[in-house]
Amino acid sequence: MKLFNYWRSSTAYRVRIALELKGVPYEVQSVSLVKEGGENLKPEYLAINPQGRVPALALDDQRILLQSPAILEYLEERYPAPPLLPTNLEERAHVRALCAIVACDIHPLNNVRTLRVLRAQGQDEVAVQSWIARWIEEGFHTIEGLVGDSGFCHGDTPSLADVCLVPQVYNARRFGVSMDVFPRIRCIEQQCAALPAFDRAKPEAQPDATA
Amino acid sequence: MKLFNYWRSSTAYRVRIALELKGVPYEVQSVSLVKEGGENLKPEYLAINPQGRVPALALDDQRILLQSPAILEYLEERYPAPPLLPTNLEERAHVRALCAIVACDIHPLNNVRTLRVLRAQGQDEVAVQSWIARWIEEGFHTIEGLVGDSGFCHGDTPSLADVCLVPQVYNARRFGVSMDVFPRIRCIEQQCAALPAFDRAKPEAQPDATA
Repeated sequence: MKLFNYWRSSTAYRVRIALELKGVPYEVQSVSLVKEGGENLKPEYLAINPQGRVPALALDDQRILLQSPAILEYLEERYPAPPLLPTNLEERAHVRALCAIVACDIHPLNNVRTLRVLRAQGQDEVAVQSWIARWIEEGFHTIEGLVGDSGFCHGDTPSLADVCLVPQVYNARRFGVSMDVFPRIRCIEQQCAALPAFDRAKPEAQPDATA
Repeated sequence: MKLFNYWRSSTAYRVRIALELKGVPYEVQSVSLVKEGGENLKPEYLAINPQGRVPALALDDQRILLQSPAILEYLEERYPAPPLLPTNLEERAHVRALCAIVACDIHPLNNVRTLRVLRAQGQDEVAVQSWIARWIEEGFHTIEGLVGDSGFCHGDTPSLADVCLVPQVYNARRFGVSMDVFPRIRCIEQQCAALPAFDRAKPEAQPDATA
C-alpha cells in the first residue's frame, strides 16, 4: 500500500504510527501542503483525494481510503495484530472517545485550512496563536482527566488513542503550547517516543522533512 | 440506557437516530446548552461529562460513554442488527470516511462552542454566517461527489454515514445554507426523513424542543 503523506501533517502522522505499530509494509508519497501552488491541489492529486488533503491510503488494488479516523479503523480490522483497541466494548468506546477528542474537538480547529481562513479574515498572529492554544488546552484538560497513570492512554500497550494523541502533542509543542499542566500526557508522550514504531513515524524521520 | 440529550444538538441527534434504527430502548434526559448559566456546566452534569456537552450515554450499569463517534461505534458493536456498517472492510472505511467528513471537517467548526469564541473575538453575524456556510459547503461538495444515487450514502439501507449526514443537513438548513447544489444529499435527506426511526429522532420531536 502507498500512503500519501506530508511530514508535518498530524493526521498522516497518526496513520504512520498505526502502520508502524502493526508492521504493515508501505511506501510513502510526499504531497506538500505548503509549496507554492500546493501539490495537494493539483489535478493528479485531487483525482486521488478530492479533498486535496493528506493522508490518503492507496491499497494494492488501487482503491483509495480517505480520512484518518476511517483509515485507522480499517487498519485495525484488516491487520488485527497487535490490537490497537481493547476487546471489551465499553473500553473500546473509551479509547475511541479519547481519539474523538483529538480528531473532532482539537485538530479540526487548528489545521492548516482553518488557520488560513482565520488569517484571511484579518486575524493577527497573536489572535491565531490564542485560538490554537485554546482548543489544545481545552481538549488536553479533558484527556488528562480521562487517562490513567499507566503511561499509555488506556492499559499498558499503545492504542488508537495514543496514535491520535502523540501527533497532537507534537502540534502543541510546535505551536508553543505549554505542556506543564499535563503530566499524564507528557508521560504518555515519553513512553510512546521510546517505542521504535513511534520513532519511525515521527515527522523529523520523514524523507520530505525540512529543517 | 439513558441519553443525555439536547434537542438541537446535531451530535445527540446522530445518537438518537442510531438508537432508533437499532430499536434500542432508551430514556432521555435533557441538558440545555443555552439556558442562562447552562445546565451543561453545572457540577452535577460535569460529573457525568467533564466536557459539559451532549451527547453522553449512561449504560444500565451507570458507566458513561462520551463522544458521539465513539457512541455510534459502540452501538454498532453492542447491537449488530440492523447493521449500520457494511461487512466489506473497504466499504466500511468508505462509510466511516463520510462520517469523518461530517464529524471532523464540518461540525467542529460550526458547533456552539466554536461560534461563541468567534463572536467573543468580535466577529459580526455576517462573518459568522460566512464561516458556517464555508465549512458546510466545502464538506458537502466532497460528500456529494462520494455518494451514489441510491438515495442513501452507501448501498440501499441507512448506514452510520446517513446517521451523521442527516443532522448536518438539519444544521445547514437552520443556518440558511442553500442545498440547491447538493441534489444527492437532498435525496438522502428525503429518503431518510421517510423512515420512522429518523422521524422519531428529529429535533422537533424531542420533548425539550422549543418553538
